[in-house]
Amino acid sequence: MTESLTRFISIEGGEGAGKSTLIRGLVRHFADLGLPLLQTREPGGTALGDGLRAMLLDPAQPPVHPEAELLMMFASRAQLVREVIRPALAAGQWVLCDRYVDASFAYQGAGRGQPADRIEGLREWVCGDTMPALTLLLDLPVDIGRARAAGRGEADRIEAEGNGFFERVQAVYRQRAADEPQRFQLIDASAPPDEVLARAVAALAPLLAIGA
Amino acid sequence: MTESLTRFISIEGGEGAGKSTLIRGLVRHFADLGLPLLQTREPGGTALGDGLRAMLLDPAQPPVHPEAELLMMFASRAQLVREVIRPALAAGQWVLCDRYVDASFAYQGAGRGQPADRIEGLREWVCGDTMPALTLLLDLPVDIGRARAAGRGEADRIEAEGNGFFERVQAVYRQRAADEPQRFQLIDASAPPDEVLARAVAALAPLLAIGA
Ligand SMILES: Nc1ncnc2c1ncn2[C@@H]1O[C@H](COP(=O)(O)OP(=O)(O)OP(=O)(O)O)[C@@H](O)[C@H]1O
Ligand SMILES: Nc1ncnc2c1ncn2[C@@H]1O[C@H](COP(=O)(O)OP(=O)(O)OP(=O)(O)O)[C@@H](O)[C@H]1O
Ligand SMILES: [Mg+2]
Ligand SMILES: [Mg+2]
Repeated sequence: MTESLTRFISIEGGEGAGKSTLIRGLVRHFADLGLPLLQTREPGGTALGDGLRAMLLDPAQPPVHPEAELLMMFASRAQLVREVIRPALAAGQWVLCDRYVDASFAYQGAGRGQPADRIEGLREWVCGDTMPALTLLLDLPVDIGRARAAGRGEADRIEAEGNGFFERVQAVYRQRAADEPQRFQLIDASAPPDEVLARAVAALAPLLAIGA
Repeated sequence: MTESLTRFISIEGGEGAGKSTLIRGLVRHFADLGLPLLQTREPGGTALGDGLRAMLLDPAQPPVHPEAELLMMFASRAQLVREVIRPALAAGQWVLCDRYVDASFAYQGAGRGQPADRIEGLREWVCGDTMPALTLLLDLPVDIGRARAAGRGEADRIEAEGNGFFERVQAVYRQRAADEPQRFQLIDASAPPDEVLARAVAALAPLLAIGA
C-alpha cells in the first residue's frame, strides 16, 4: 500500500448508527490537529454523484431494479474516486468518506441480492487500490438505529425497507469486518457519541503517526 | 434462442446515420402489417433511463469519467431490459430499439477506451439472453453522418467529440457485424431513405415469417 493511501478512511454502518455524528467529531479532531481533511460521502460527493443519489433515493420513482441500483452506485463511486478522492490523496489531504464500497456489499449485495462476486468484479476496476486504510464500522442493533433515524421525517427509498433487509445488511458488514481485521475497526455504536468519537480517535492514532 | 426473442430488433450506427428516419419507416411498416410493436431507445426508454440520458449528454456538466459513463449506460440498459423489453417480448410484442448493447462496445469501448472484456462482462449479467435476433447497422462515412447530424443545432456531449472518436466507433461496429454475421445486417446508409427502408424490410422478412 502506498503512503498516500494510508490517509483514506471510510465510515460504515446501518441507518442511524451515528455516522454523520461521528464525522462531525472527526472533522473537529482533524482541525484541532491542523491536518488537511477532505470530507465526502456516498452516493454523491460530485455533481454527477449527487444527481445519481437523488434518482436512487427518491421514493416517488418507480422501483429501480437491483442491477440498475448497483450500477448507479458504482457510477457514482467511479466519478468520486477519479474526480475527488484520488486528487485529494495525491495532494496530501486526508479523506474521510461517509460510506464507501463496503456499503455496496451490504446494501446492494446482502440487501438486494446482487451476488458478491459481481460486486467484487466492479470493485476491482472501479476502485482498484483506492481502498481505505481504515474503515470504522459503527455497529448497532437494527431497531435502535432505525428508531434514531426515524426522528428525521419521511423515509427515503432505502430507509423504507423492512427489518429483514437491515438485518442482512448488518450481517454482511460484520462478516466483512471479521474477514479484514487489519482494515476494519468495529465500534459499539450504542455508546454515547463522545465515547464513540474517543474510540474512533484511538483507532486512528496509529494511522496519524504514519500518515501525518 | 427462444421464440419470443426473435421479435427483438436493434438499430445501430453512428451520428446522423439515419436511425431515427429508418425507425419511423419501420413503425409504419409494422402498423401496415398489423403487428404490435414497441419502439424504444437507448440510453433512456424508462423514467430512470431518461434521467441518466440527460446527465450523460449534458454538455454543461463537468466531464463524466469513462468508467462512470459505461456504468450509467448499463444502468439505463438494466432498467430498460427489465421494465420494458422483457415484459413486451413476453406479451408477444415486437421490440424495436434505437441503439442497444453494441453501442457500448462502439462508444464506451472503442470511443472512450473501456476494455471490451469489461463491457462483455457487464453485457452478460445485464442483458443475459435478451439479445436482438436482428441488428440493422447503418453504415456511413463519418463525415457524411456528422454533416447530416449537424443540421440539428447544438451538439451534445458525445456529438462534440472529434473525428478520431467516430472513426473508432465505426470500426468497432463493422468488426462486430463481421464477427456475428447471423445477427447483423449491414446497410449502406448513403442510399436514399426509401432504399434504406426497403433493405431493412428485406432483412426483416425471414424474422417476420418466423415470429408473426
Ligand atoms: N452514539 C449515539 N448515541 C445516541 N444517539 C446518537 C448517537 N449518535 C448519533 N445519535 C443520534 O441518532 C440520530 C442519527 O445519527 P446520525 O445522523 O449521525 O446517523 P447516521 O449513521 O449518519 O444515519 P444515516 O445512515 O441515516 O445517515 C441522530 O438524531 C443523532 O443525534
Ligand atoms: N438515407 C438518408 N439519406 C440522406 N439523408 C438522410 C438519410 N436518412 C436520414 N437522413 C437525414 O439525416 C439527418 C439525420 O438523420 P436521423 O436523425 O435519422 O439520424 P440518426 O442516426 O437518428 O442520428 P442520431 O445518431 O443523432 O440519432 C436528418 O436530417 C435526416 O433527414
Ligand atoms: Mg448520515
Ligand atoms: Mg436518432
